[in-house]
Amino acid sequence: MATRNIKLTIAYDGSGYHGWQAQPMQTTIQGILTDALFALTSQQISTKGASRTDAGVSALGQQVLFTINSPIPTENFQKALNDRLPKNIAVTEAAEVPDDFDVISDVTSKLYRYTISTAKTRPVLSIDHAWHLPYKLDQLAMDSAAKLLVGTHDFKSFASAADNRTNSVRTIFGCNVIGENELIHIDTEGSGFLYNMVRNIVGTLVEIGIGRWKPQIINHILAAKDRTAAGPIAPPQGLCLMWIKY
Amino acid sequence: MATRNIKLTIAYDGSGYHGWQAQPMQTTIQGILTDALFALTSQQISTKGASRTDAGVSALGQQVLFTINSPIPTENFQKALNDRLPKNIAVTEAAEVPDDFDVISDVTSKLYRYTISTAKTRPVLSIDHAWHLPYKLDQLAMDSAAKLLVGTHDFKSFASAADNRTNSVRTIFGCNVIGENELIHIDTEGSGFLYNMVRNIVGTLVEIGIGRWKPQIINHILAAKDRTAAGPIAPPQGLCLMWIKY
Repeated sequence: MATRNIKLTIAYDGSGYHGWQAQPMQTTIQGILTDALFALTSQQISTKGASRTDAGVSALGQQVLFTINSPIPTENFQKALNDRLPKNIAVTEAAEVPDDFDVISDVTSKLYRYTISTAKTRPVLSIDHAWHLPYKLDQLAMDSAAKLLVGTHDFKSFASAADNRTNSVRTIFGCNVIGENELIHIDTEGSGFLYNMVRNIVGTLVEIGIGRWKPQIINHILAAKDRTAAGPIAPPQGLCLMWIKY
Repeated sequence: MATRNIKLTIAYDGSGYHGWQAQPMQTTIQGILTDALFALTSQQISTKGASRTDAGVSALGQQVLFTINSPIPTENFQKALNDRLPKNIAVTEAAEVPDDFDVISDVTSKLYRYTISTAKTRPVLSIDHAWHLPYKLDQLAMDSAAKLLVGTHDFKSFASAADNRTNSVRTIFGCNVIGENELIHIDTEGSGFLYNMVRNIVGTLVEIGIGRWKPQIINHILAAKDRTAAGPIAPPQGLCLMWIKY
């Protein structure tokens, strides 16, 4: 019965939770997962998530690492945990990973999708998973602006003040604005993200979509390295962590 | 300040409610709407809904009629009520209708959509709006069976026992099984429906989709005029009242 490192892929509806990260007296995804692991193994298992999603943010492909000494076969973790998790959290995959695998520093790419609804009336069936903006947004302008974010840049202007990482240079592999009927998806793929970076990007693209700013302002915002140069933060419920690659 | 008949189009996420119909000590859509009308007008206004959707069933196009004596212009009801309704209920239209308009008997057509998710793992973002069946379903067989329901038939075999209407003959204008990635939509349009009729149709089509029955069984089920001849009832959360025409 050797010690193993197990990586879970987890999906969750974040709308009823105080984010991923366990916190005293708050219902969090990590807290609920720790409870399910305890119910299954009678062990207090420490988990590490790849992305610290905020309150209200959902995920289809969060990655979670833990070390365990248990006779349960790896392939049984998915069903056994799903039987013990609430319906709005699910394990979609469980895999054994090498001892030296790190769920945060080994990430090569992540995709976040942000969804806006431009429906005239509030979209009752997706109100917890979209930012409702009942306006005409210029999607072409937004997509032109999104393209200026692609590449390796200092994204300090898009990091919320609470971000205390000293290096704010990140690489965005792609940023696409995709219309689907009354929905607009903003898909941002990158090697890593600063705190609230995607939501600050979305808030900025919306300023461009409503015509307040031109797409070229992105170059000025990047050069400013100042949070106040960018647009306001978009609300959390439109954000979903789609996948993480290693 | 004349008395007017106003017809509202209402959308709601039914997952947190005990159905449309007001009931003592239960949170219902009709109850919440009556409260919002009272908050707006200080009048206790009696409303009549076109469809008595069950607990857990959602709607994008429920129709609601009421009579009011108030100076509020008809076109202001939508915004004024939306400001007083919770985020998962919304008025999408308000229109004045003639004195002799009846919101139930004047219906010419209704469309219900039922959604099944065949995702391997439970779909956390749509768990309250789809029936999760992680199987391979034969959509062609289901659609062939659905086509046998179209027309004017005695649908007694598809009515739950609680239905006390003496005439169980109804007309189905269309019944289509539509695949969309891991989702299957079953769209049923008809002039009127018996109690639980759509959910009993869906439960029957699923028996056909999993291969337990052949599509032709529909003819036998219709002829039997016996609820036990059809399949089990599908759960409520997959059902959504899409629209009603007059």
